[in-house]
Amino acid sequence: MSTQKMVYLFEQGSAEMKSLLGSKGANLAEMSRIGLPVPPGFVITTEACNRYYEENRQIWPELEQEVRQCLEVLESTTGRRFGGENPLLLSVRSGAVISMPGMMDTVLNLGLNRETMEALARESGNRRFALDCYRRFIQMFGDVVLKIDRNLFEKVLEDKKEARNLSSDAELSEEDLESIVASFLEIVRREAGREFPTEPWEQLLLAIKAVFDSWHNPRAQVYRQANRIPDHLGTGVNVQVMVFGNLGDDSCTGVAFTRNPSTGEGKIYGEYLMNAQGEDVVSGARTPRPIAELKEEMPAIYEQFVSVCRTLESHYREMQDIEFTVEKGKLYILQTRTGKRTAPAAVKIAVDMVREGLISREEALQRVDPGQLQQLLHRRVDPEAKLDVIARGLPASPGAASGRLVFNADRAQALAEEGEKVLLVSTETTPDDIHGILAAQGVLTSRGGMTSHAAVVARGMGKPCVCGCEELKINLEEGYFRVGEEVFREGDLLTIDGATGQVIRGQVPLIEPQLTPEFKELLGWADQVRRLAVRANADNPEDARIALEMGAQGIGLCRTEHMFMAPDRVPVVQKMILASTLEERERQLEQLLPMQKEDFKGIFRAMAGYPVTIRLLDPPLHEFLPDRDEVLLKVHRLRQQGAATPELKEQEQLLQQINNLAEFNPMLGQRGCRLGLAYPEIYRMQVKAIFLAALELIEEGMKPEEIKPEIMIPLVGHREELARMRKLVEETAAEVLGSREKELPYLVGTMIELPRACLVADQLAEVADFFSFGTNDLTQTTLGYSRDDAEAKFLPFYLREGILAVNPFMEIDREGVGQLVELAAQKSRKRKAEIKLGVCGEHGGDPHSIAFFNELGLGYVSCSPFRVPIARLAAAQAVLK
Amino acid sequence: MSTQKMVYLFEQGSAEMKSLLGSKGANLAEMSRIGLPVPPGFVITTEACNRYYEENRQIWPELEQEVRQCLEVLESTTGRRFGGENPLLLSVRSGAVISMPGMMDTVLNLGLNRETMEALARESGNRRFALDCYRRFIQMFGDVVLKIDRNLFEKVLEDKKEARNLSSDAELSEEDLESIVASFLEIVRREAGREFPTEPWEQLLLAIKAVFDSWHNPRAQVYRQANRIPDHLGTGVNVQVMVFGNLGDDSCTGVAFTRNPSTGEGKIYGEYLMNAQGEDVVSGARTPRPIAELKEEMPAIYEQFVSVCRTLESHYREMQDIEFTVEKGKLYILQTRTGKRTAPAAVKIAVDMVREGLISREEALQRVDPGQLQQLLHRRVDPEAKLDVIARGLPASPGAASGRLVFNADRAQALAEEGEKVLLVSTETTPDDIHGILAAQGVLTSRGGMTSHAAVVARGMGKPCVCGCEELKINLEEGYFRVGEEVFREGDLLTIDGATGQVIRGQVPLIEPQLTPEFKELLGWADQVRRLAVRANADNPEDARIALEMGAQGIGLCRTEHMFMAPDRVPVVQKMILASTLEERERQLEQLLPMQKEDFKGIFRAMAGYPVTIRLLDPPLHEFLPDRDEVLLKVHRLRQQGAATPELKEQEQLLQQINNLAEFNPMLGQRGCRLGLAYPEIYRMQVKAIFLAALELIEEGMKPEEIKPEIMIPLVGHREELARMRKLVEETAAEVLGSREKELPYLVGTMIELPRACLVADQLAEVADFFSFGTNDLTQTTLGYSRDDAEAKFLPFYLREGILAVNPFMEIDREGVGQLVELAAQKSRKRKAEIKLGVCGEHGGDPHSIAFFNELGLGYVSCSPFRVPIARLAAAQAVLK
Repeated sequence: MSTQKMVYLFEQGSAEMKSLLGSKGANLAEMSRIGLPVPPGFVITTEACNRYYEENRQIWPELEQEVRQCLEVLESTTGRRFGGENPLLLSVRSGAVISMPGMMDTVLNLGLNRETMEALARESGNRRFALDCYRRFIQMFGDVVLKIDRNLFEKVLEDKKEARNLSSDAELSEEDLESIVASFLEIVRREAGREFPTEPWEQLLLAIKAVFDSWHNPRAQVYRQANRIPDHLGTGVNVQVMVFGNLGDDSCTGVAFTRNPSTGEGKIYGEYLMNAQGEDVVSGARTPRPIAELKEEMPAIYEQFVSVCRTLESHYREMQDIEFTVEKGKLYILQTRTGKRTAPAAVKIAVDMVREGLISREEALQRVDPGQLQQLLHRRVDPEAKLDVIARGLPASPGAASGRLVFNADRAQALAEEGEKVLLVSTETTPDDIHGILAAQGVLTSRGGMTSHAAVVARGMGKPCVCGCEELKINLEEGYFRVGEEVFREGDLLTIDGATGQVIRGQVPLIEPQLTPEFKELLGWADQVRRLAVRANADNPEDARIALEMGAQGIGLCRTEHMFMAPDRVPVVQKMILASTLEERERQLEQLLPMQKEDFKGIFRAMAGYPVTIRLLDPPLHEFLPDRDEVLLKVHRLRQQGAATPELKEQEQLLQQINNLAEFNPMLGQRGCRLGLAYPEIYRMQVKAIFLAALELIEEGMKPEEIKPEIMIPLVGHREELARMRKLVEETAAEVLGSREKELPYLVGTMIELPRACLVADQLAEVADFFSFGTNDLTQTTLGYSRDDAEAKFLPFYLREGILAVNPFMEIDREGVGQLVELAAQKSRKRKAEIKLGVCGEHGGDPHSIAFFNELGLGYVSCSPFRVPIARLAAAQAVLK
Repeated sequence: MSTQKMVYLFEQGSAEMKSLLGSKGANLAEMSRIGLPVPPGFVITTEACNRYYEENRQIWPELEQEVRQCLEVLESTTGRRFGGENPLLLSVRSGAVISMPGMMDTVLNLGLNRETMEALARESGNRRFALDCYRRFIQMFGDVVLKIDRNLFEKVLEDKKEARNLSSDAELSEEDLESIVASFLEIVRREAGREFPTEPWEQLLLAIKAVFDSWHNPRAQVYRQANRIPDHLGTGVNVQVMVFGNLGDDSCTGVAFTRNPSTGEGKIYGEYLMNAQGEDVVSGARTPRPIAELKEEMPAIYEQFVSVCRTLESHYREMQDIEFTVEKGKLYILQTRTGKRTAPAAVKIAVDMVREGLISREEALQRVDPGQLQQLLHRRVDPEAKLDVIARGLPASPGAASGRLVFNADRAQALAEEGEKVLLVSTETTPDDIHGILAAQGVLTSRGGMTSHAAVVARGMGKPCVCGCEELKINLEEGYFRVGEEVFREGDLLTIDGATGQVIRGQVPLIEPQLTPEFKELLGWADQVRRLAVRANADNPEDARIALEMGAQGIGLCRTEHMFMAPDRVPVVQKMILASTLEERERQLEQLLPMQKEDFKGIFRAMAGYPVTIRLLDPPLHEFLPDRDEVLLKVHRLRQQGAATPELKEQEQLLQQINNLAEFNPMLGQRGCRLGLAYPEIYRMQVKAIFLAALELIEEGMKPEEIKPEIMIPLVGHREELARMRKLVEETAAEVLGSREKELPYLVGTMIELPRACLVADQLAEVADFFSFGTNDLTQTTLGYSRDDAEAKFLPFYLREGILAVNPFMEIDREGVGQLVELAAQKSRKRKAEIKLGVCGEHGGDPHSIAFFNELGLGYVSCSPFRVPIARLAAAQAVLK
């Protein structure tokens, strides 16, 4: 180790050496290499940084030696001397492998003391400039290296300007600066308990140490944790000859993007300040000017800069974020890096660059973060808007909406019919509230998690929803809620942001979703690359239509229970559930049959030519019954009134039935096929509705081959469950279709959502045409997490404390759940090579999870309609990775 | 197939040919072979039975041919002719591979008609006897072959006896029998629409067909299903020369066991009837006499029979159940088979046979069904008692108890203190009821499954419990329940049987548990053979004491939550849970600390020298809070009263807190280590109590090496959870033990009860000294079954319908849950070869599951104290299998 080279002159490095030189250093080296005007300098490596910590934060002799040698090269290149007449001044900047903007430290104008300041004054013929550099140096060094509170320096500057009635630093006179320098040195003496170090070499070593130390300052540690950057990467130190943008009106400094980072427009975008150093642009002390004005102010420089931008873009084949300085009419480039951008810009830049021949389509696909695309697919809060956030809940259904508060579904419907935009607020919602959700712009609840009724229904309808916002103390009866001491009532205006969970006071500006031609083009390329098909989860014709528009290749999950929840059906469904005889139940089912049939007709029609996976009834029956507390209190009230009225008897019976159906853990209770086996008449009605729908559509002129039902049996754990339900489907199909059965091929499969189903996937494959992994429930059972409870209780704590790195309901838990999915895929294919495998959990719309499903070679993913574009892109990236 | 031999003479067979000849046929052949006095005969094979069904229930020519040849052999052996003068009469009996007593058909005295009857009369010189045989034959053939209602024949017999004022068949005169035969033949004519078949050969073929047919009669099918006997085994048909126990006072017939099947005593046990045929013994028409009396009546025969019994026992090396007939002073053996016996008999016989040198210890161990041992370990209902069962619930905690009904815990305590024996009846129990359960003889609830509070607590206390008895409509407020129209009130006497789930009217005789010397000896042999250690689940010193007595080698699961539920602690626990600050919570925990410490001292003291696995707090906190419905109604009532009293405010706050802690699926919610991570102060208190207890015991004179705590963290799914909790344990231990830490080695491990834990067992092994498979919860999560809900709802239906073969909470689901356990064992051992692996779910006491755990090579199983002997035996059998 001791003989390893630890310091590289820019000319000794290149862009490939990022992990050794850090990102900034490697780019400076690269720019030097390709002949761009970069002030000379050298980089102390990231390995030196690690060694520094091993040496207990000491600089060891060999490193000092190497730095000294490089410094001598700079002296001879520039013809200047460090600490001498014609003084060499340096900038000392951090530079990590993965850029951590603003997290670590920088010192400019290093090498100044009273003598070199005077030498600089003589050389430049501008004593004010030299003094300005000197006071900047003391200030920055004092802050960064000597850890003196920066406000002490700022206060001196402010006091001086106030005393002299000046508005900007640039107006300070030579005399002003002299007195400021004296005050600064006095501050150092007082605060640091030592004289300001005048020896340039000592200054340099202290600055290098400070940059190394800043790798472990608290804000850098937090940033690394948040961005999962490993601690051992270390930072490089870039030591570079100073150039001065503050040498007068032929000097300036600025930053610019090679394209517009907000829109992606192919024009240079940035700003600059005349007669200033870099930190003036950042600090906001003076207002910078748009880069376009430089064209008029310094036409030649501007031309040269535009050409540098072009060179850098075509060299890096990426939009660049560039720092530059003009010193006495000469342009210097101080840094270049890949520019951050918004989602619309990312899409436009990627597509434009393909058109310009800069990058390939495959590269373009990899340039866009699919997670970011969410922004483009929902109405969202204008990022420029000032927000007064009054509370935060769970981001349950993306999109933003403003409206007047209402506290019950009927009122929501009534006001909406009068043309009012309303937000429905409730503790939680039930199937009785569907018409209110439908009428509202969005839903806000104080209880329930990401799979609560409100969340599921709102996502299904594509409406914004914020759930489980516990800060709201809601009084439904009187129609208000309290946050802290403040009360909000019906009619008050609020905005909710379902992507962040924010509840915002008043109406704030919203941005409409953008489906630009570039976006469509990019997704078209993705479709050519990806191996996974992408379907949508959709429960009604309207969602199916949106899904198709978003590029879905079928429906991967049509949840029939949502059809049971329509307000005109709930009473029939309740009667069906509470029926005391099979005959009575079948009579109610007879009533539901034509309704279900119409649902399926609409969906088949919308999805003509594409497969539609229909999941038979899944949730426990008590979900459809009235709220237990209400009935309990009603019974109690009626009992108090004394007489045994028929109403009391009826309510008592209802309570009894609700109690009978109640379960301790409904998630693990009588639902899915357990229901279908116990009440085969329900599934039979649903299957009948499916095939009657198909028959009628054919009679109405649809081609049979355009109707592709895939009937899915939920919550199967044992082969026998599926075998019996398959038999029920086949018998019912034969009965309904009769001689036309051959015209209408259909599939029967199961949702794989229990660990046992994965473990015996080979047995299940014998009686299944397809598996659809229901990774939501599979995550719940494999991890033993009730999602609603976990997200309301321990999961946020687990994530905050780092016990879990990611929310397993957002990104699939590869080690646990993923292992089961892989096992099931292997076992089932071994038994039945042609089995269709897909995913219909919410992970089907998550890019990291999609990458995993692609690795396993599954057939398709299915996600909510508005995530289909994200999935299409992510599936392509998974292939390209 | 057509050339295969289908009929075997007895002398052509042996005991080894059971699967071909059926059990009875093979034993008849074997007895012939070893020279015992068996009437000659032949067997039609079980393969012939299968062929019979393939031939659409027809007898084919080759079979007829073989039967005819064998019949000729019988004729020549006996010097009789079938249908001739000196007539050969036959018995035709079924005989399956696995004995199905009473399920299939038999015809005796076959070959009789008017002519052969008269020939028999002449030959025997006893026309009454011949007529008696004839009427028996017509009656039996009419019933079995011609399917005529047997009651029609019985009625004729009864009418005749009444008319003649006789009390038994034996008193009927020749004339009576003549007229009865005539009536019987008339019945056949009328009911069967044909004359009674007089041709003996036709009789024989029809009887053979009838026996084959009886293989598929409904009761045989039900029996096979219940006993899991495959349909394809088929039955043999035994055709044997008749011998007559009804030939006068030198003839008799009887059945006997070679030892007492009820006690195991080594004396012949049975009964006989003078001058009778076999069915008379079975039918109960006459009361048989104890076999001992035969010694006086026919001393020589008795001696010969005793000698036959000895021969058969030493030949089969098993207790035999023998049918015999004495015809005119000559003994014939008609059947022998292994005798069924009670649990005490099974144990005594097995041990005695080892002492007698008949069998080895290993064989003795395999002779006792561990499942049956349950009988010996709890008080049980006398099997002789007549029961009036009024309802049935779940068999939640074994044992039987009688007592007077009480409907609340306080009343139970009060009455018990007055010396009354009471049964606590409730819809369900809560921690508030503990004192009532403690005071009661047993618990009966109308709701909740095998893991409900009542069930768990009762099992823990070893008290009988019947749960989820939904037939009881309980009115707690008014203190009664209704079953159908009948009302039961406080003070009424009932008996519950927690082994069967029966609720029985009145007080019935109970049998005390028996721990005989033989039983202890047998278990001692088991201990020498078995590889699995057996521990007990015990939560208090009393249970620990019982566990030791039952032979437990430590505690595998000490559930600390039961310590929280003691009535004097519940208020403190509730305050602790509802504490709004950490300080307040710690103050309450401070109060609990000395109580927990005393618990652990008691357990360590009782278990001196043995390991004690202590599971830190597991259940969700809301389990300790008051019933929500009650608080809800109280709040409602107080609100109605108007004024905002402090009580209303308090109750509203309580309701709010209960609501906050409430979960949708508590089984998958904030419990186990999720609690420990969120409220480390609770676990810290518990760990402190453990080590303080150890320290004090050492000071009181116990040797440190006698205290072996194994601290178990529940519900771990991720390595990080366990790593952090391990750290908490280690830090607390170091703090409490100080310099004495080395003296007191302890282990830290986890309960494996989530599928994910199995899947990442290698990672968990890195931070665990042991794993204890909590197969109850692992079954719940792997199968997605909430046990309480499943056992109350769909599981009984699944078992009844044959969707599942066994209850997976009783016997481990090898294919699903078992696969995960195996995976976890492999993965963890690969990472840490020395890791301790055990099982603490209820499967730890189930013999089938124990066999599986033995296969996997786990280290121990742990079960409730009263199942320890069962587990010891089952573990030995697993090795011997």
